Amino acid sequence: MSDPSARDAASPPPPLPSATRQIVLSSRPSSVPLPSNFSLVESPIRPLSAMEILVEILFVAAEPAMRGWVNSDPGYSPPIAIGAVMRSFAVGRIIYSLDPHYSVGEYCTGEFGWQEHAIVKAEQIDRRLPAPCAGNPALSAHLGVLGLNGLTAYIGLVKLGHPKPGHTVVVSAGAGSVGSCVGQIARILGCRTVAIVGSNAKADYCRQQFKYDAAVNYHDDNWEQQLKDACPNGVNIYFDNTGSFISDAVYPLMSLRGEVIICGTIATQCWRPVPTGPRLERNILIKRLSVQGFIVLDHRDYYDEALSHLSQWLGQGLLAYREERLSGLDQCMGAVERLYKGENQGKVIIQLKEINEEIEAEKK
Amino acid sequence: MSDPSARDAASPPPPLPSATRQIVLSSRPSSVPLPSNFSLVESPIRPLSAMEILVEILFVAAEPAMRGWVNSDPGYSPPIAIGAVMRSFAVGRIIYSLDPHYSVGEYCTGEFGWQEHAIVKAEQIDRRLPAPCAGNPALSAHLGVLGLNGLTAYIGLVKLGHPKPGHTVVVSAGAGSVGSCVGQIARILGCRTVAIVGSNAKADYCRQQFKYDAAVNYHDDNWEQQLKDACPNGVNIYFDNTGSFISDAVYPLMSLRGEVIICGTIATQCWRPVPTGPRLERNILIKRLSVQGFIVLDHRDYYDEALSHLSQWLGQGLLAYREERLSGLDQCMGAVERLYKGENQGKVIIQLKEINEEIEAEKK
Repeated sequence: MSDPSARDAASPPPPLPSATRQIVLSSRPSSVPLPSNFSLVESPIRPLSAMEILVEILFVAAEPAMRGWVNSDPGYSPPIAIGAVMRSFAVGRIIYSLDPHYSVGEYCTGEFGWQEHAIVKAEQIDRRLPAPCAGNPALSAHLGVLGLNGLTAYIGLVKLGHPKPGHTVVVSAGAGSVGSCVGQIARILGCRTVAIVGSNAKADYCRQQFKYDAAVNYHDDNWEQQLKDACPNGVNIYFDNTGSFISDAVYPLMSLRGEVIICGTIATQCWRPVPTGPRLERNILIKRLSVQGFIVLDHRDYYDEALSHLSQWLGQGLLAYREERLSGLDQCMGAVERLYKGENQGKVIIQLKEINEEIEAEKK
Repeated sequence: MSDPSARDAASPPPPLPSATRQIVLSSRPSSVPLPSNFSLVESPIRPLSAMEILVEILFVAAEPAMRGWVNSDPGYSPPIAIGAVMRSFAVGRIIYSLDPHYSVGEYCTGEFGWQEHAIVKAEQIDRRLPAPCAGNPALSAHLGVLGLNGLTAYIGLVKLGHPKPGHTVVVSAGAGSVGSCVGQIARILGCRTVAIVGSNAKADYCRQQFKYDAAVNYHDDNWEQQLKDACPNGVNIYFDNTGSFISDAVYPLMSLRGEVIICGTIATQCWRPVPTGPRLERNILIKRLSVQGFIVLDHRDYYDEALSHLSQWLGQGLLAYREERLSGLDQCMGAVERLYKGENQGKVIIQLKEINEEIEAEKK
C-alpha cells in the first residue's frame, strides 16, 4: 500500500472544473414526471464566495416523493421552479472549500440536486460521511437504508407507531426502499411482518431477503384472502406507502386501536380529480384507529437516534437492502417514472462518477 | 318547609311495584332503528338477591350510538340480543336496597335501559347524583351535558385533540348534544368555533345560545364556500360527528398538522355496502393530519377530571344545553329515528315518571 500523504504531496491537485452538467425541470408533468419534463444542461461553475464549498457529486437518488416536488400544487415542499435544477438527495466529495470546517476529500450528503457539482454552504450539508473503507457502509447506502429511506422507516414505525412484540405489521410497497426497511425493523422488534407487493418476484425477495413472515402479490386474484390469512390476529400497524385499493384491503383487517401511518400514495398517479374509494370513518371510529400522515422531514430531532440504530443493525447484518444502480446523469430523467411503474428492483441510485471504493478504502 | 325526617317517619314506605314496563328489541333494523323494531312489554319484578338494588327510573336517553348497539355487526359494544331490554343510560332513584352502601332515596345514573325499573348491583351504578335541589344541576343533565355527551365533548376535544387559543375548531352536528358542548368548550379554551348544522334554525341557535363564531347550514347551496369563509386560517381541529359529504368539505380546509376526531357517523344511515367518497390519504399525508376514532367509554380515567370542569363551567353559566323532553316509556321507540332525521331540538330525554324537582329540593 502506498503512502497516501506521499502521493498527495507528489501529485498536484487536479484543476477545478469550469462547468458542470445539470438536470433541470423543463415543464410540469400532469402526474408522474417523465423524461420529457426534464432537460440536461451544461452550466459554468461560478467562482466560490466566502465559506462556500464545491462538492463533486458521486451519487444521486430517485424518490417517489419527487412526483410531489415537481407539482405546482401546494405540497409539503415548495414546488421546484421551471428551469431549476431538480432537487435530490446526493452523496459527494468535497473538492474545494473556503470553509475552514470542511476539507477537500471529505464525503458528505445533502440535498445537492441532480447535477455533477454543487456549490453549497455548511448548513446545506446534512452530515459528513465516513470514507468508504472496509467495515464502513457503502457510500450509496447513505441515500437509502442510512438515508431518508431508513430514517423514514425507523421514525415512522417506532416514533409514530407503537410496535410491540407479537404485533402484526403490514407494509404496502413492502419491497420498496422504505417498506423493506420497515419490515425488517418490525421483525427486529419482534413483530409479525407482512408485505404487500406487485409481483411474485418481489414477494419471493421479501420473504427470502427481507425475512417477512408473509408477502402477498396484489396482482393475484385472491390476494385479499391471502392477506387476511396472513394476518390471523388482525393488523396492529399498517405502514402505508401506496394508499388506494391496497389500503382498501387492509382497513377491514385492522385491529382494535390499530395504527395507520400514511407515508406515501404511490398507487395513485393523479389526484385531479380526487379518486374515490370506500369511506373509512366508520372503520376508524368503531376500531378507534389512529391514522397519521407522516413526512420524515418533520422529525429531524430523531435522526441521530435513528441513524445510530440503523447503523448498528446494518453492521450486525440484520438489515438487508437492495439497490438498482444506474450510471450517468442522463439516467435520472426516466428514473421517477420507473418507480411509479414498479419496474425498479430496489432503491434507484444514479452514479455520476466512477469511484473505486476499494481504492478509496486503501487511501484511507 | 316541613321537616322531611318527621314526614318520612309518619308515612309508611310505599309498597314496592310487582311489575315494570320495558322496551325490548323485537327485530334488527337494516339501518336506523324504527318504532317497529321495538315492543313495549310488561314484566314481573323478581325478588331481589343479596346486594341488589331496585332503581325506579326517572329519565332515559336516546343516542345516535343506539343505531350501532342494535346492529348485529361487530361494533364497539356487543349487540343487544333480540328480546332484550334496549340499552340506555338512565337516571333513577333507589327505592329498595339490599346493599348497605346504597340507601333508598338516593339518585344515581347508569346503563339501566329503557324500562321503568331496574334491578342492579353497585358496579352497574356509574355514580351517585346530587339531589335535584336549587343550585344543583337538573337530574336530566346527567344524561347530557354532565353525562356521556359532556364527557365525550370534553375528553375528545381536550384529551385527544390539542386545542390552543386562536385555533379554529369545526364541529359537525354542531348543534347536537355532543357538538354544542364541544363548541362551547373550545370557545372557553380560546378557540374560534364553527358549527356545521342542517337548518337555519339550528345555525341561529348555535350562534346565539352556543356562541359559535360561525354556523353553516349544509342545505345552503353555497355552504362549502360559507364554511371556507368561516375558516380563514384553515381548520386546526375537526370534531366530526357526521362523516360523509360534510367531512368531504372540511378535509380540504384542514391546516398543517390538523387533528380530526371522529366521534360519530350520523350522516351515513347504512354501511352495507360501504359508501364511497373522495380518498383522503393524500390530504392526510401532505398536511400530516392526525385522524382518530374516538369512543368515550375507552377513557374512563378522565371522567372525574371532565365532570369537574363541566360542572364548574355549567355552574358559571358558560355551558348552555338544549333538551327535548318526551314523556312516557312508549316515546322511546321513535326517538332514535328522530335523531337520524335531525328532527330533534337538543338532547332527547324521555321522562318516565313525573318528578317535581322543586319538591325534591324542598325535601332535601
